[in-house]
Amino acid sequence: MSRALELAHNGPATGINPRVGCVIIAADGSVVAEGWHRGVGTAHAEVDALSKLPHGGARGTTAVVTLEPCNHTGHTGPCSVALIEAGVARVVYAVSDPGHASGGGAARLRAAGVDVISGVLADAVDDFLDDWLTAARLGRPHVTVKWASSLDGRIAAADGTSQWITGTAARQRVHEQREGSDAILVGTGTVLADDPSLTARGDGGELLAAQPTPVIVGTRSIPSDAAVFRHPRRPILIATHDVADVLRDLRARGFRRAYVEGGPTLVSAFVAAGLVDEYLIYLAPSLIGGDKLALGDIGVATIGEQRRLDIVSVEQLGADLLVTARPRRAPASTVKEGV
Amino acid sequence: MSRALELAHNGPATGINPRVGCVIIAADGSVVAEGWHRGVGTAHAEVDALSKLPHGGARGTTAVVTLEPCNHTGHTGPCSVALIEAGVARVVYAVSDPGHASGGGAARLRAAGVDVISGVLADAVDDFLDDWLTAARLGRPHVTVKWASSLDGRIAAADGTSQWITGTAARQRVHEQREGSDAILVGTGTVLADDPSLTARGDGGELLAAQPTPVIVGTRSIPSDAAVFRHPRRPILIATHDVADVLRDLRARGFRRAYVEGGPTLVSAFVAAGLVDEYLIYLAPSLIGGDKLALGDIGVATIGEQRRLDIVSVEQLGADLLVTARPRRAPASTVKEGV
Repeated sequence: MSRALELAHNGPATGINPRVGCVIIAADGSVVAEGWHRGVGTAHAEVDALSKLPHGGARGTTAVVTLEPCNHTGHTGPCSVALIEAGVARVVYAVSDPGHASGGGAARLRAAGVDVISGVLADAVDDFLDDWLTAARLGRPHVTVKWASSLDGRIAAADGTSQWITGTAARQRVHEQREGSDAILVGTGTVLADDPSLTARGDGGELLAAQPTPVIVGTRSIPSDAAVFRHPRRPILIATHDVADVLRDLRARGFRRAYVEGGPTLVSAFVAAGLVDEYLIYLAPSLIGGDKLALGDIGVATIGEQRRLDIVSVEQLGADLLVTARPRRAPASTVKEGV
Repeated sequence: MSRALELAHNGPATGINPRVGCVIIAADGSVVAEGWHRGVGTAHAEVDALSKLPHGGARGTTAVVTLEPCNHTGHTGPCSVALIEAGVARVVYAVSDPGHASGGGAARLRAAGVDVISGVLADAVDDFLDDWLTAARLGRPHVTVKWASSLDGRIAAADGTSQWITGTAARQRVHEQREGSDAILVGTGTVLADDPSLTARGDGGELLAAQPTPVIVGTRSIPSDAAVFRHPRRPILIATHDVADVLRDLRARGFRRAYVEGGPTLVSAFVAAGLVDEYLIYLAPSLIGGDKLALGDIGVATIGEQRRLDIVSVEQLGADLLVTARPRRAPASTVKEGV
């Protein structure tokens, strides 16, 4: 399964389809074929792996795949059927497919007499597919919230000046994170105050290959000459303060990955609503004090209500720290057998 | 010099005297004696090392010592004279003694014809002697400021509740840091709000061997039944809002190491006055929002005035982070020859 997960990494990080890897193992334990999914419209990982075997070559083998084989016909036929027809004896997968249309592959395989084992390396694959699974399970985009503050949680000085709190390495990382998202969300207040371009740019200021769509949330008017209107993608204006509504809108547009950049009003609304899947908190080695805070009121009346996080990693970027965290969740109860 | 620094670590971390190590090296490069200082009233490192040699055994040797040999008579005679009388040919030291009374040893050695080299491994020894050197150079105690906040810089929820934001490992570390200080400083507001005992306690709540003196700063009255009055050391009340005055008072009492625990008013006053040598910022993996901040106004009107820090280390303590930082300083221009 580790090898299947490695293969999955070869796939594209963006787009509507998940990244999946597959390894076909003979009865003697040798690997006879490998495959991975290259994005929408191309063969799924299982079919890619099977295609490398001669006719009948998969008979009696074990297919190890990171995601439950699909059970529906989209651009390609159902993988569960392809595995059954190839004569695969056993299927081992990590994570179940939560999709209404695509799920049910395991049941179909079992009904055809294929031995099915699930949950192997499930935590690792779950982490890897986090954004795709969130979108599939919750019916809304995966939400990353980012802010950059001083160590005392400030994003600007008393007069509103804020450039630069973090250094170049941290700012470059933000551009890469923008590039990996379908949409960048900011509030109207941030557009009015900072006039950001919201493009994903490289070291030299050049536009990166992928550009997320700018999404401006709030009811205040934006001047027609705002920099965001010169973005390569047409900005989406959503005139509401209800962030759940915002996510429904983005979901309807087929967006899977939302990157919330601020300001504090929009960020606090997402945190207060419990609609954050990942936090990227840049901490600059400085103290500012005063009232320009990264986070405002998030509805914590008493300490028992504080929003507990799990820190995933702490990274040094130049002189800054990047704390990556997620909402604390109960320990996973998935099967963890090795293959 | 590395070995001399190792030896210095054998000395006591608290008390009025610095920790010093000394190695005596023969002309052929072999180490003939080692010594270190064991605290006030005992032999200094140089004299401790010389005492291990037979009469005349130090003639023509090199003494490598972490701190400039002293030039005054306190509980013991001046080390510079002891080295001269022993016939030491060369003295190599790391850091100059900034003391008015004790300094001048190098000049005395040179006047007696001893070859003197200074600045070797100066940065490492400077770090090691940080608190003692601060006290000696600036004529005030070394100041550590500590706070424990959520990742967004809050120390309590809207209703003022705050127990527990950080976990047991972080809280235990705080008790060890209290134990290593001469004084714990809090504002009257903290005493009135939290009624802290300000003792240094172990895992099981037992008192640790060393107990810092509680110092309560501010002009509000403290009730006579406050927990701090049951502290093994009698609390010192300093009725001022001028933190420079507070440090002058502590210096006059012979305190070398002050540990400022809060609350935000007192902490902000030290930061605003530029009177902090070390920051210990505990960050719990949680978000709280609202207006109960670790740091208030520190006089940063515009972003160019933000207080830049150098992060010394980031440590994971249980689920919490401990960021150790210092005010940013210009790169040291000390000599860095090897011996």
